[in-house]
Amino acid sequence: MNARSPVKRGYVRPLDLRRGQVEMAHGAGGRASAQLIEEIFLGAFDNPWLRQGNDGAVLTPVLTPGERLVMATDAHVISPLFFPGGDIGSLAVHGTLNDVAMSGARPLYLAASFILEEGFALADLKRIADSMGQAAREARVAIVTGDTKVVERDKGDGVFISTTGIGVVPAGIDTGGARARAGDVILLSGSIGEHGVAILSQRESLEFETQILSDSAALHELVAAMLAVVPGLRVLRDPTRGGLATTLNEIAGQSGVGMLLEEAAIPLQPQVEAACELLGLDPLYVANEGKLVAICAAADAEALLEVMRAHPLARDAAQIGRVVEDGHGFVQMQTRFGGRRVVDWLVGEQLPRIC
Amino acid sequence: MNARSPVKRGYVRPLDLRRGQVEMAHGAGGRASAQLIEEIFLGAFDNPWLRQGNDGAVLTPVLTPGERLVMATDAHVISPLFFPGGDIGSLAVHGTLNDVAMSGARPLYLAASFILEEGFALADLKRIADSMGQAAREARVAIVTGDTKVVERDKGDGVFISTTGIGVVPAGIDTGGARARAGDVILLSGSIGEHGVAILSQRESLEFETQILSDSAALHELVAAMLAVVPGLRVLRDPTRGGLATTLNEIAGQSGVGMLLEEAAIPLQPQVEAACELLGLDPLYVANEGKLVAICAAADAEALLEVMRAHPLARDAAQIGRVVEDGHGFVQMQTRFGGRRVVDWLVGEQLPRIC
Repeated sequence: MNARSPVKRGYVRPLDLRRGQVEMAHGAGGRASAQLIEEIFLGAFDNPWLRQGNDGAVLTPVLTPGERLVMATDAHVISPLFFPGGDIGSLAVHGTLNDVAMSGARPLYLAASFILEEGFALADLKRIADSMGQAAREARVAIVTGDTKVVERDKGDGVFISTTGIGVVPAGIDTGGARARAGDVILLSGSIGEHGVAILSQRESLEFETQILSDSAALHELVAAMLAVVPGLRVLRDPTRGGLATTLNEIAGQSGVGMLLEEAAIPLQPQVEAACELLGLDPLYVANEGKLVAICAAADAEALLEVMRAHPLARDAAQIGRVVEDGHGFVQMQTRFGGRRVVDWLVGEQLPRIC
Repeated sequence: MNARSPVKRGYVRPLDLRRGQVEMAHGAGGRASAQLIEEIFLGAFDNPWLRQGNDGAVLTPVLTPGERLVMATDAHVISPLFFPGGDIGSLAVHGTLNDVAMSGARPLYLAASFILEEGFALADLKRIADSMGQAAREARVAIVTGDTKVVERDKGDGVFISTTGIGVVPAGIDTGGARARAGDVILLSGSIGEHGVAILSQRESLEFETQILSDSAALHELVAAMLAVVPGLRVLRDPTRGGLATTLNEIAGQSGVGMLLEEAAIPLQPQVEAACELLGLDPLYVANEGKLVAICAAADAEALLEVMRAHPLARDAAQIGRVVEDGHGFVQMQTRFGGRRVVDWLVGEQLPRIC
């Protein structure tokens, strides 16, 4: 994404940000592309790297000995683009920052690539770019480089955004999924299912007494607070697509352990529970965009829960289960009714295009 | 992109890589997603970071004092997906590596995000993933993390691939576009227009006596050889979308200088010239994917051309013009017929979805 100059040179009329649409020329790499970048993205993402106008951003992260770099990427194809509690722009920032943060890292920089559909309203694109810029500023990361392509009508769907983040993992921190051990406990930062239910309600035009908002949020400051208290925390992961059930199955498989959950301990808002019943969804499989799972030694659980509950994004943090020995990697759950069932991987597609 | 385990656990039948298609479930984050990743991407990109199976890849680039990190991203929406000289997979590797290399950097790692259309043939997806893996191995970079999403039929176009690269810029190297000065000379690594003409010929089902191949290639080793000889090289950039003309206009604008090109000195294959005439294209605006522009002090030109011509990707390297004083940043060209004309930015869309 380059700070090119034809607009400043007075060649072209400003974009019509009220009634204008994305045209094929906006992706051709010439004057129209430069104008789109200048008038929509540069202002929204304003930072010195983008203003340099080169095809790559030259960065100077200071790595002290023992620190490592982390890189994560996510494509965002959510539909609808605007939803209660966010939009594809803020989600594209939060989603990738959270993947970086789950490595225990301090996120530093984001790259963003846009695939626009011909005919997409420039007003919506600007709204999305502004939302991305705001989400990045709030999270104190910079969107340092980018790219924009345009595809013909009906070859895309408004806008897709891929974001890639890099960050720095402090020395001694390792929160990868293979470190859970029998005897560890499983913590969850808050109630599940809000993101998926918010999207689906919007799609189905359902109205509930209380509007359900997506929980989309950047979790890296919560993670930093947690690691400051328990640097030996074993595993961090955010239960996004596939929900809590799939995330726990992934970790169980990576670590070669089993898990035993307490259904009654899993935080769930009553209106989300009601909506899931109405929609025929199991909240364990519904996507979250602002929650994390933390696995730690039993002795660390109390201190970790205390620091989590002191953070606005984890007030309802709870211990939801424990890690047990099981070479087959099964996740089981003690139900509210006293029985026990296997909580398997998500099979099939529960909620397409949820992120 | 996670090395998840349901396939190994014997839950599912292997993918039908001959007749199978992408389904919505492949993007839902559950068992089908895990299977797609394991059977198509993990083998193609095989490396220890992917096998860790976490949402981000933890890396340990060794930065010595003065070295800086560079980050670049590109969305690839090329149509057709397979073309003479490459495919969207190899292009997605080369395109982003080259953006990293144009900062003078040694590329290290790539992230890849895929947006797949429901119904896309798994056999084609595997061919593309294998091609990406091969291009990455040949360039000695690792695809360390990734993401896959699926959109409904007619909401995408087969496959879009966004890649993000990071690399390390050696101490003392700065090849950004703002450093050209009057008196410098402009070098080009080889003949122009092959990529765009190869794509357009395929689209229009044109046949020429000699098949024109895309020049898609990774340029970082050429760049390293050039910087070893002339570390003070001023500017590097690859003339992709918008072609040589647009790239030179960008640099002229960033540096606040003019340029004067010699049309007769710009390498152009006769069959590309003929195809451009037939198709009504000006080769100056046609995309390249394996060429670079280098601007250097006049005194360095001979040494630089020598090292370029010794490299297989720059055998036809030539001095094509020089940098002149011009506050308006105009690029002009001495034509073969002795006249002089302004070479402006690309206006409108010449070749949609060329990369």
